[in-house]
Amino acid sequence: MASYGDNNCAGNGSVWRFKGNVATSDAAAVTLRKLAFGMFKNCSLNSGKPVLFPTPGEPSASPDFKTCPEAEEAVAAAARSGMANSYASSHGSFKARRAVADDLNGELPAKLRAEDVYITSGCNHAIEVVIDSLAGNPAANILLPRPGYPHYDARAVYSGFEIRKYDLLPKSDWEIDLDGLEAASDENTVAMVLINPNNPCGNVYTYDHLNKVAELAKKLGIMVISDEVYDHLVYGDMPFVPMGKFASIVPVITLGSISKGWVAPGWRIGWIAMNDPNGILRSTGVVQAIEDFLELTPQPSLILQEALPDILEKTPKEFFAKKIRAMRRSVELSCERLKDIPCLYCPKKPESCSYLWLKLDTSMLDNIKNDFDFCTKLVSEESLVLIPGVALGAENWVRISIGTGESVVEEIFNRLKSFYGRHAISKKDIKVNGDVINQNVVSVV
Amino acid sequence: MASYGDNNCAGNGSVWRFKGNVATSDAAAVTLRKLAFGMFKNCSLNSGKPVLFPTPGEPSASPDFKTCPEAEEAVAAAARSGMANSYASSHGSFKARRAVADDLNGELPAKLRAEDVYITSGCNHAIEVVIDSLAGNPAANILLPRPGYPHYDARAVYSGFEIRKYDLLPKSDWEIDLDGLEAASDENTVAMVLINPNNPCGNVYTYDHLNKVAELAKKLGIMVISDEVYDHLVYGDMPFVPMGKFASIVPVITLGSISKGWVAPGWRIGWIAMNDPNGILRSTGVVQAIEDFLELTPQPSLILQEALPDILEKTPKEFFAKKIRAMRRSVELSCERLKDIPCLYCPKKPESCSYLWLKLDTSMLDNIKNDFDFCTKLVSEESLVLIPGVALGAENWVRISIGTGESVVEEIFNRLKSFYGRHAISKKDIKVNGDVINQNVVSVV
Repeated sequence: MASYGDNNCAGNGSVWRFKGNVATSDAAAVTLRKLAFGMFKNCSLNSGKPVLFPTPGEPSASPDFKTCPEAEEAVAAAARSGMANSYASSHGSFKARRAVADDLNGELPAKLRAEDVYITSGCNHAIEVVIDSLAGNPAANILLPRPGYPHYDARAVYSGFEIRKYDLLPKSDWEIDLDGLEAASDENTVAMVLINPNNPCGNVYTYDHLNKVAELAKKLGIMVISDEVYDHLVYGDMPFVPMGKFASIVPVITLGSISKGWVAPGWRIGWIAMNDPNGILRSTGVVQAIEDFLELTPQPSLILQEALPDILEKTPKEFFAKKIRAMRRSVELSCERLKDIPCLYCPKKPESCSYLWLKLDTSMLDNIKNDFDFCTKLVSEESLVLIPGVALGAENWVRISIGTGESVVEEIFNRLKSFYGRHAISKKDIKVNGDVINQNVVSVV
Repeated sequence: MASYGDNNCAGNGSVWRFKGNVATSDAAAVTLRKLAFGMFKNCSLNSGKPVLFPTPGEPSASPDFKTCPEAEEAVAAAARSGMANSYASSHGSFKARRAVADDLNGELPAKLRAEDVYITSGCNHAIEVVIDSLAGNPAANILLPRPGYPHYDARAVYSGFEIRKYDLLPKSDWEIDLDGLEAASDENTVAMVLINPNNPCGNVYTYDHLNKVAELAKKLGIMVISDEVYDHLVYGDMPFVPMGKFASIVPVITLGSISKGWVAPGWRIGWIAMNDPNGILRSTGVVQAIEDFLELTPQPSLILQEALPDILEKTPKEFFAKKIRAMRRSVELSCERLKDIPCLYCPKKPESCSYLWLKLDTSMLDNIKNDFDFCTKLVSEESLVLIPGVALGAENWVRISIGTGESVVEEIFNRLKSFYGRHAISKKDIKVNGDVINQNVVSVV
């Protein structure tokens, strides 16, 4: 801690005794929002092209990737109902909690009660609530996936956790490196975060693999925080299995929201579900800590809470079916177009979520140091904003959002091709026995 | 810190290594939400009467205290626009920031730019953002008013601040005890919180008093956090003066929301405005800390952000005028009815906000220990939920919400009268030279 003398700042004839909290800076530095919006902001537009920053919910998205009118009408009706104006319980309105429990219960052997669900301002908020509620021991550590979703890292840093990473294995369909996870844990490990369906890898875990995860977590004495925010966006052959199915083995806190399934991340309504038939989360004080933290943190808009039951219950199945068909087309198109860009390699065709997660081979490119350099130059030269892997914990990978419709996907790959064309090492420069040519690219995608 | 052995919990054949964060409990204990909902929950309904918990925005409120249709339509239109579905900038949408700056600028000599405004999920969230952004020095303290709004206390506790109180003076129209404030401060004081219009006292500070506050804050080297969430609910003769008028003397962070003015606290949209023409908040790193913290915290629903410009610009003036007339009627009616309840004394008729802030004289009551006991028994016997002063930092005071229409006010006082009738010390018990009879009651109210 700096001495107070360092903080004083002469201004206006006075000495000011306050200063900004630098801890916010350390934590914010790893957030995706800060990084992505920072790249967008620094876009120098040398390309003359309009900025292309494919993200879900954009007004320019194709009809297949717009939210459904039934959900919009539910919100409009809630705003006019007069039932959403007063303060709600900090835990969420009972109707909303009941609706989420009903929605999740279909596949669960141990049913959730309304009281087992808390309503939050989207899934990022759910992450904050759960991570902060587990903090307090400065020696504690938490296991996060690599690659992973960086809001976990940011909130864990801010809550004073030591972060330990476990790997997802590209050669094993992105399954968790369970031996590595066990090796990374110790007596101060309190929880592991599982993201399923997986952002950014696009896989869905099998029943058997999740069962192994549950048994390992039980052995280690840690809880599983299961981020299932993409559970309505599964389009491969592998069925999605909620981690709550294994809650009799290990306590599972499930996080979700409508952001991805309904393509409305700006609405900000999510939840925390306590899958805990053995009452361990209550006996260890985690339930109390979450309920207390909810008194300290902003409640989600009651308009969205009031609309949530109708959103969950009245959205036509065809809305999701249409989106899944559109995602399949986007994936096929992307993999076809990827053949033109051999420096990007896709180890597994995605079967969930809305991304391609691609290995970047910088040895095939001239004067591109790493993924961050690749993305920064891509913004500058092509006005195309992609997410460098380093933001998700994995250097020399790139995440491309393809959940925005075929015309946007075509434009993304047109610009990538143009960029690659300018930066590819020419054939005469390729070493004969070098590792420049990625032999797997065409066959895998 | 407890040793790890204390935290283990045998369950399900495993030893669980996690436990709930007790810091959340310490902070949540002082929140108004936890206390008020706790009293409500513990209501044993011995009265046979329906529960009466007067709070703003209740569906049962009279038409004068309902939100305006223009605001509801703005939200409904935003939900249907397709413009509110994607992620927004963490600082808030530019349109919303611009609209708030325009709304506040009318009375300010140094105009706010859109970039000086941040959008939050209501004013409680704004409090969280500002308090956390000033934290980080474990020796720092912050000055809060007594009585005051307990969310400041809760967030200051959670952020590790030492809390120091300054008094509001009932005999001086609830002005700040400036000598006491100065005496409470030292070289580790970073900020003072000012609530104007004042919750719970119902006063509005004069230009001259605020000027003195600014000069004192400058002398002490501290910033002023000015909570102006009630700025649209002023019905006395004293005009409201925004603290931002004095920002050339001392940096002022103004907090606000639509919750009170539009009677829609459930909607959750508020703001932080940086009144800082001399750039002190930037040079001391406070702007950076706030911008970083906004990356870590839930964004307000983009639907509400999208609706905010129309809410601020298109609400008819008559909407506020009607509410102000209704508040005046509620105040007059309340003061008239208060004559029946001599144990409650109003030192100053409110001219803003929607509360009566009343001194409780327990010596006139049989077997009532203090304000908390008074409120608890009132809930039990009359199913009427009032806020005990201790929740706002002042023992033996009571806050009554009267911003809900005349029929509710009548019912509140019917129940209070019935309660007083049962608990009043009978005349024969009153000591002749005692202080049981509060001589001021009738003349003051």
